[in-house]
Amino acid sequence: MNPDRRPAEDDLVRMIRGLASRPGATGVRRSIGDDAALLEPTPGATLVATTDLLLEDVHFRRRWAEPADIGWKAMAVNVSDVAAVGGTPRWALVALACPELTAPDEIAAFYEGALALCDAHGVVVVGGDTSSSPGGWMVNVTVLGETVSPVLRSSARPGDVIAVTGTLGRSAAGLAVLEREAAPPGVASDLLAEMTDAHLRPRPRVAEARWLATAGGVTAMMDLSDGLATDLPRLAAESGVGATVYIDRLPVSLATRAVAAALIHDPIAWATGGGEDYELLVTCDRAAFERLRAGLSGAMLTAVGEITGGRGVRWIDGDGREVTVATGFEHFSRA
Amino acid sequence: MNPDRRPAEDDLVRMIRGLASRPGATGVRRSIGDDAALLEPTPGATLVATTDLLLEDVHFRRRWAEPADIGWKAMAVNVSDVAAVGGTPRWALVALACPELTAPDEIAAFYEGALALCDAHGVVVVGGDTSSSPGGWMVNVTVLGETVSPVLRSSARPGDVIAVTGTLGRSAAGLAVLEREAAPPGVASDLLAEMTDAHLRPRPRVAEARWLATAGGVTAMMDLSDGLATDLPRLAAESGVGATVYIDRLPVSLATRAVAAALIHDPIAWATGGGEDYELLVTCDRAAFERLRAGLSGAMLTAVGEITGGRGVRWIDGDGREVTVATGFEHFSRA
Repeated sequence: MNPDRRPAEDDLVRMIRGLASRPGATGVRRSIGDDAALLEPTPGATLVATTDLLLEDVHFRRRWAEPADIGWKAMAVNVSDVAAVGGTPRWALVALACPELTAPDEIAAFYEGALALCDAHGVVVVGGDTSSSPGGWMVNVTVLGETVSPVLRSSARPGDVIAVTGTLGRSAAGLAVLEREAAPPGVASDLLAEMTDAHLRPRPRVAEARWLATAGGVTAMMDLSDGLATDLPRLAAESGVGATVYIDRLPVSLATRAVAAALIHDPIAWATGGGEDYELLVTCDRAAFERLRAGLSGAMLTAVGEITGGRGVRWIDGDGREVTVATGFEHFSRA
Repeated sequence: MNPDRRPAEDDLVRMIRGLASRPGATGVRRSIGDDAALLEPTPGATLVATTDLLLEDVHFRRRWAEPADIGWKAMAVNVSDVAAVGGTPRWALVALACPELTAPDEIAAFYEGALALCDAHGVVVVGGDTSSSPGGWMVNVTVLGETVSPVLRSSARPGDVIAVTGTLGRSAAGLAVLEREAAPPGVASDLLAEMTDAHLRPRPRVAEARWLATAGGVTAMMDLSDGLATDLPRLAAESGVGATVYIDRLPVSLATRAVAAALIHDPIAWATGGGEDYELLVTCDRAAFERLRAGLSGAMLTAVGEITGGRGVRWIDGDGREVTVATGFEHFSRA
């Protein structure tokens, strides 16, 4: 009665094994095809482990997310978590449930999307599970990595600079575009594609995180998966500190602002509340910030505020007034 | 728009963190509450990693599976996979999606079930994910373990004895009882409870597997998750060998036979096709079998056949005739 035993199951495992095979990958003694993967950790390294669920109509819609997008993103959000503690992602386990009548091509495309992200970061898929789903697509990815210099979210100190990589709000802008029936008027198609790509195919800041973790001066780090207005309070609470953020310093791209204008939406609400940007939220010594900003290749590093004594996060507008900002929760199934 | 950011989410993580906290657990540097868990592997050990999905109305029904049962079983099937390669399970990541209106008590009960299995085997829950579900309950568990003496399913050799631990078919008998509207007539309630417990709360053979992996003479091992008629062909194919099984040697308990008689079902079909017994399927040197059987504490070890040259699995009945056996596939959503 184990549903994994449908006749095509072993064929499916063979297909996945073929797609995921990376002969000569270091540290892999045995992967897909046994009860469990056998891996060779680097002596002296700390093991990093994280897992994330992605569910159809909760985290994505099939109307606008292709199987390859789903695979890419499910892998990317986990790779981002490993990077966010200063880790090097190495191995992944992929569990997929999809409707009984899903075409093998779609399942292959899902794995190809996940494997494209893996190949970009030297990650090998070493195991997983498959099942039919009584509902929509459901994906769970676990990524294992290693680090010799972990950076946690619990070690920020009063006086530290708060900084973020890249720009904020692009993923939320992309989701707003994807959720519409028609493209918003008056926005160039390449700008729209930049936004939707940011939502569908986030690029985890792996190299940037590793550099920041070892450059000296970074006191705490996490990735921005739920939006600054949700994630920064978590970092502050874990560190036992407060924080002040200056809203007009938040890096929001001209493209994001253009989409916001076309959709009559506040771009700052996307930046604070949108989530899923997978940029890095960093705290660092005041004296180290300029060196880190200048030394970081591949992404801007923008100071947006400072860690304070006390508790809680204060948001200050351009006139110096304390304001509230959007946490932006939107739930598909209630939308 | 990240659905994990519902207001109660951080409260839920706090609750899980409290339930899962095991102060002083070795090898855990940082667990629930950061982007990723930080773990300290044992120097020189091989890392073992496995993941499994359990979905409502595919793998279980809420009519007969309590949240604590779901948690226990989701953990047990993964712990069994780690044990099956000769590993010691150490750390787990638990991802749970359940309907929006699920009571916190039910979520707590799910984790308590998973943690009870963990505590029995020294496993620490170090991370996970939570989400609302647009359908039923969905669980994904990843278990990490370690071994210095892995045993694979790909190393059986012609002439080896094929043996199984415990008895087969109990889980399938239990499922048959659970799926009925009323208890089968004429079977003592303690026998029924033994069957349903075998299905709802499987006991992974962790200590037995570790002993077998290191006792000498075992050539291949895997756990029986999908039934002997599905799993043995996999072991034979991975090892590039054939196999012969003598059906009247299959260990089927009197209780299983009594339930089968009451339900007018073939107990052998449950033993070969039922799956989810999580007993060990072992191949060993002919000369080693008796020593292994006598030395194994905690479970019977029964010789059921032998590895042969060639390919494929032959099933021989009590009269010496080759027969076909049930692979027993039953799928809830098509039932």
